[in-house]
Amino acid sequence: MARGIESVSMETIVSLCKRRGIIFPGSEIYGGLANAWDYGPAGVEMKRNVKDAWWRDMVLRRDDVVGLDCALIMHPKTWEASGHLASFSDPYANCPGCGRNWRADHVPGMLWESEWWLSLRRRLRNTSGNAQRDLQRWADGDGKKSAPNLGLVQRPQAVVAALTEVTADFDAPDDLFLAFMRALGADAAGKAQTPCPACGGALSEPKPANLMLATFLGPIRATALEVYLRPETAQGMFVNFRNVVTATRRKLPFGIAQMGKSFRNEITPGNFTFRTREFEQMEMEFFVKPGDDERWHDYWINERFDWYVRHGIRKENLRVRAHEKAELSHYSKATSDVEYRFPWGWAELEGIANRTDYDLKQHAKFSGQDLSFFDEDTKEHVIPYVVEPAAGADRAMLAFLVDAYDEEEVKGEKRTVLRLHPSIAPIKAAVLPLSRHEQLVPLAREVHQALRRRGRWPVEYDDAQSIGRRYRRFDELGAPLCVTVDFQSLEDKQVTVRERDSMEQTRVPIADLERVLAERLEG
Amino acid sequence: MARGIESVSMETIVSLCKRRGIIFPGSEIYGGLANAWDYGPAGVEMKRNVKDAWWRDMVLRRDDVVGLDCALIMHPKTWEASGHLASFSDPYANCPGCGRNWRADHVPGMLWESEWWLSLRRRLRNTSGNAQRDLQRWADGDGKKSAPNLGLVQRPQAVVAALTEVTADFDAPDDLFLAFMRALGADAAGKAQTPCPACGGALSEPKPANLMLATFLGPIRATALEVYLRPETAQGMFVNFRNVVTATRRKLPFGIAQMGKSFRNEITPGNFTFRTREFEQMEMEFFVKPGDDERWHDYWINERFDWYVRHGIRKENLRVRAHEKAELSHYSKATSDVEYRFPWGWAELEGIANRTDYDLKQHAKFSGQDLSFFDEDTKEHVIPYVVEPAAGADRAMLAFLVDAYDEEEVKGEKRTVLRLHPSIAPIKAAVLPLSRHEQLVPLAREVHQALRRRGRWPVEYDDAQSIGRRYRRFDELGAPLCVTVDFQSLEDKQVTVRERDSMEQTRVPIADLERVLAERLEG
Repeated sequence: MARGIESVSMETIVSLCKRRGIIFPGSEIYGGLANAWDYGPAGVEMKRNVKDAWWRDMVLRRDDVVGLDCALIMHPKTWEASGHLASFSDPYANCPGCGRNWRADHVPGMLWESEWWLSLRRRLRNTSGNAQRDLQRWADGDGKKSAPNLGLVQRPQAVVAALTEVTADFDAPDDLFLAFMRALGADAAGKAQTPCPACGGALSEPKPANLMLATFLGPIRATALEVYLRPETAQGMFVNFRNVVTATRRKLPFGIAQMGKSFRNEITPGNFTFRTREFEQMEMEFFVKPGDDERWHDYWINERFDWYVRHGIRKENLRVRAHEKAELSHYSKATSDVEYRFPWGWAELEGIANRTDYDLKQHAKFSGQDLSFFDEDTKEHVIPYVVEPAAGADRAMLAFLVDAYDEEEVKGEKRTVLRLHPSIAPIKAAVLPLSRHEQLVPLAREVHQALRRRGRWPVEYDDAQSIGRRYRRFDELGAPLCVTVDFQSLEDKQVTVRERDSMEQTRVPIADLERVLAERLEG
Repeated sequence: MARGIESVSMETIVSLCKRRGIIFPGSEIYGGLANAWDYGPAGVEMKRNVKDAWWRDMVLRRDDVVGLDCALIMHPKTWEASGHLASFSDPYANCPGCGRNWRADHVPGMLWESEWWLSLRRRLRNTSGNAQRDLQRWADGDGKKSAPNLGLVQRPQAVVAALTEVTADFDAPDDLFLAFMRALGADAAGKAQTPCPACGGALSEPKPANLMLATFLGPIRATALEVYLRPETAQGMFVNFRNVVTATRRKLPFGIAQMGKSFRNEITPGNFTFRTREFEQMEMEFFVKPGDDERWHDYWINERFDWYVRHGIRKENLRVRAHEKAELSHYSKATSDVEYRFPWGWAELEGIANRTDYDLKQHAKFSGQDLSFFDEDTKEHVIPYVVEPAAGADRAMLAFLVDAYDEEEVKGEKRTVLRLHPSIAPIKAAVLPLSRHEQLVPLAREVHQALRRRGRWPVEYDDAQSIGRRYRRFDELGAPLCVTVDFQSLEDKQVTVRERDSMEQTRVPIADLERVLAERLEG
C-alpha cells in the first residue's frame, strides 16, 4: 500500500518502542548495560510472533525438518572442533612494563599478518555496509564524528592524512580496511616491534581475545570448569546429529532447526537491537547428499528471501548479496546474505551458508565418533553437506518494525501507524467502549473476555481517553483491528470493526466476532 | 483413567526420552557435561507446549497480566539490590599454607553458625525429599553407595557412627541436616579454628562462593566488566516495573510474566532434567496493594495447583506444602510449593511466594529511582506487594512425562504409552498408510500434507515397519491420534482415526479430518 513517509530515523523507532512497551533499554534504572535491551509487553508478543512464524514455516509446515533445543552451555570441545576457540577472536597485546592490555588494532605499528587479524578482517567485512560507510566517511574527513563507532580508531588525527594518500593494491572490498590499517602505521613486513602507547615498553606479540563469553561450571571458580556461552546455535545440531538421526530415522535431505540465545563479545554493539552481545538466533542446518548442496543452497536463499516478503517486508527494501571469496567464513564454500535497507544502510538479516561437510567432519575427528550417514539407497556411508539459513530473531523483528513504520495526515493531524502483517502484529485487536458510560463498559468487557477466553490472540481492552486517542494508540502498536462498542451495540448486538490501514469501519454481530477476526487475522 | 502400572523408574523415563528423541544427554559425543540435557525433535515440541500452555493461561487469557522478555545479562547492581550477590552462595575456606580452597561444609570442624551456612541449610532443605532420603539411607549404613550425591560427604567412614547416635533437638525437617553437620565435627559454639585437611595449616574464615554464573562483557577479560547470568527471571520484572507501568497504564493488581533461561551453579545437579545448572523458568510477579497480598497468595496457590491438574497431572500426585518459617528465603513472608510425587519422592515443581515489597524497595534504594505506584483511587503513592508463582519449565515437563507414563498388556504384548494431555503431547497425530503399497502412499502423503499445511500442529508421517509397530511408536510419543489410510480409503475417501488411550477406531471422511482433529485435540 502507499506510504505516507519515505523513511524513518532510528531515534523515532527507539522512542516509539519505549513509549508503547515494545522495547525498553535493558537495566535502565541502573543506567543501562552495554547496548542490552528488554522486550516489553507488546515486544514480547511481537517477538513470539516472529519466532512462531519462523518455526511454523521452517518446521511445522515441512516434513523434511525437525526441531531441537540444546543447552546454551555445551562441552568446550565443541568449540575446539568448530574452530571458534582458535579463530573467533580479536587481537590484543600486553605491555610487560606497565601491565596494560591494548587492542592490537588500536595500536599503531602492530602486526597485521597474523591469522587472527585475517579473521578479524573477515568479520569486520561481514559487518558490511555500515562499517564500511563509517570508515569511508571518516577517511573523507568526517573523522571526529563518525569513526569511533567501529572501535578501531584511537588517534584519528594521526592517520587521516596518511589514509587519504594510500593507493589500494588489493581487491575490493578489502582496500579500505587494509588502507586503514596501513595508515595506522603497520609495517608491511609485519615484523616491527611496537612500543606501548602508555609507557613506551615493548609490547608482547598480539594474542587473540576470544569473542566467546566464558563462564564457570562449579561454585568455586578456582576449581570450576571454564566453559563458553554458545556463539551460535548451529553446533548443537552437529553434536546431536547422530542422536536425531537415530531417534527420527530421517533420510537425506533433512534439516534440524533451533531457536535460542547466543552470545558474542562484539567489538561494536550498536544500532539498537541490531547488534547486541546477547541475541537470539533462528538457525536451521539442512543436511544433503554431497553434490546436491549447490541446488539446495539456491533453494534456501530464495525461500528465506520470500519468507520476509510473505510476512510483510517490502521487496524493494530487501536484497540478496553473495559473499565474495575473501569474505567467506572458514567453514563456508559459499554464503549469501539477505539484507534489509535499515535507516543506516543495507545490513544483514540472515546468512545462508553452504557449510560443506566441515562441521560434521570436525566433530567426528574431535569426538572420535562416526558421524557419517548410511544411505539406504546407495548402501554407502557419506558425510552430508550442510546448507544453513541462519537468521537473527532480534534483527528480523527490527526490520519488521522499521518497514512497518508510517506516518500520514488524517484530518489535519499526524497519524503514526505500524503497518505490520497480522501474523507479526503484537496486539491483534483492541476492544474499546466508545466512552466510560456505565452501560457501555460491561458490554465491552464482555466482548473482550469472549475474545480472550481461548487465549488465541493478545486482545486488549482500553477505556481511557477519547476514542480518537485510543485508535492512535493501537495504530502505533500496529493492532490490525479495533472493535468499538457504542450505544447502538446495546440495541443491535453489533460492534464496529475498524481496520488499521484503511481506517474503514464495518458493523459485525458480536456473535460472529471471533470468526470475523480469525478471517481477517489469519486469512 | 485406570493405569496399567503403579510407578515408573527414572531409568525407564531417561531411556524412553533418548529413544524417541524427547531428551538427549547434552554434548553426548564429548562424554556429556555436568548433567546438561538437550531437547530433541519431540522434546522441543513438548516443551513449547508446556510454555505455550503457561503463557496462554497466565497472560493471553487474563486481562491483569502482561508479558516481558529481558536480557539474561542484567546490570550487576541488580544482584546487589536483590540480595543474590550477598546471600546466594555456598561457603568455602582457603588455606594460606598450601593455597588450597575447601568447601567449608566438606571440612570437619568448620563454623556452622554463619549467615551463609544458614542460607545453605535453607537451600538444602529446599531440595527436600531426595536429599533427605539420600542422607537417611546413608545414615542407615548404606554410606558408600548413596551419599556422595549431595557433595557433602568426604569422609563417610569417620562420621557414620556419630551420626547414628545423635539425638535430634531441633524441629523437623532440620534434624537430619544438623545432626549430619554435628557428626562431621562442627563445634556447637562455632568458634574453633579449623586445620587444613591437606597440610594442617589454619584455614581462613569461610567465605561465600556465589552460586551465580559469572561472565565478562568486553572481549579482553582483564578489562571486561564482570557480570552474571541471571539466577532467576524475576528481577527483570522489578527492574522494568516503572517502564511497564508507564507504557501499559496498569492499575493494581496486575502481573508481569516472563519465561526464559536462568543459571545456578548447583551443588548437586541431578535427577535428569529436574536440577540442572542451566534451566528454564516461567515466573510471574503479581503486584497488589499492601494488605491484599495474603488473599492473592492463596488465590495463586490454588490457581497454580489447578493448572497442573487441568493439563493432565493426576491430583493424587500433587500436593501443596507451606514452607516453615526457618525455611523461607530472605525476601519471603510466606511461600508454598506445589510438589509432585517423582519416582525419588516429593519435589518442588513451583514455589508461590509472598515477596512483600522487598524487591521494589531494594531496587528503589540501590538505583535511587522512585519505584512507587500512584494509586488513582486513594491518591497515594504505595510500594506494591508482590506474589510470585515461579515454576520450572523443565520440571513441569518432567512431571508431565512421568505422570503420563504407563504400560499395559495388549493381546499378550506390552504396550508403553504416554497418556499426555492433548495440549502437552509433542506430536498431535501421525498419518500412517497401512503398508507401503504404491496406491496407499500417495493418498497418505496427501492427507499428511493437508494436515501440515497450516502449521497448526506437529503431525508426522510414517510408512516404515508394520502398522502395529508404528502404533506402538506413536503411543510411546504420546500422540493422541493416529490416522490410518487403508485400501478402503481409496474407495470411500475415509480414514481410520485411532485414539491413543482407548485404542478405539472410528472412520472419518478425509474432508472432515482437520475439523475432527481440532475437536479431539482442542476440545
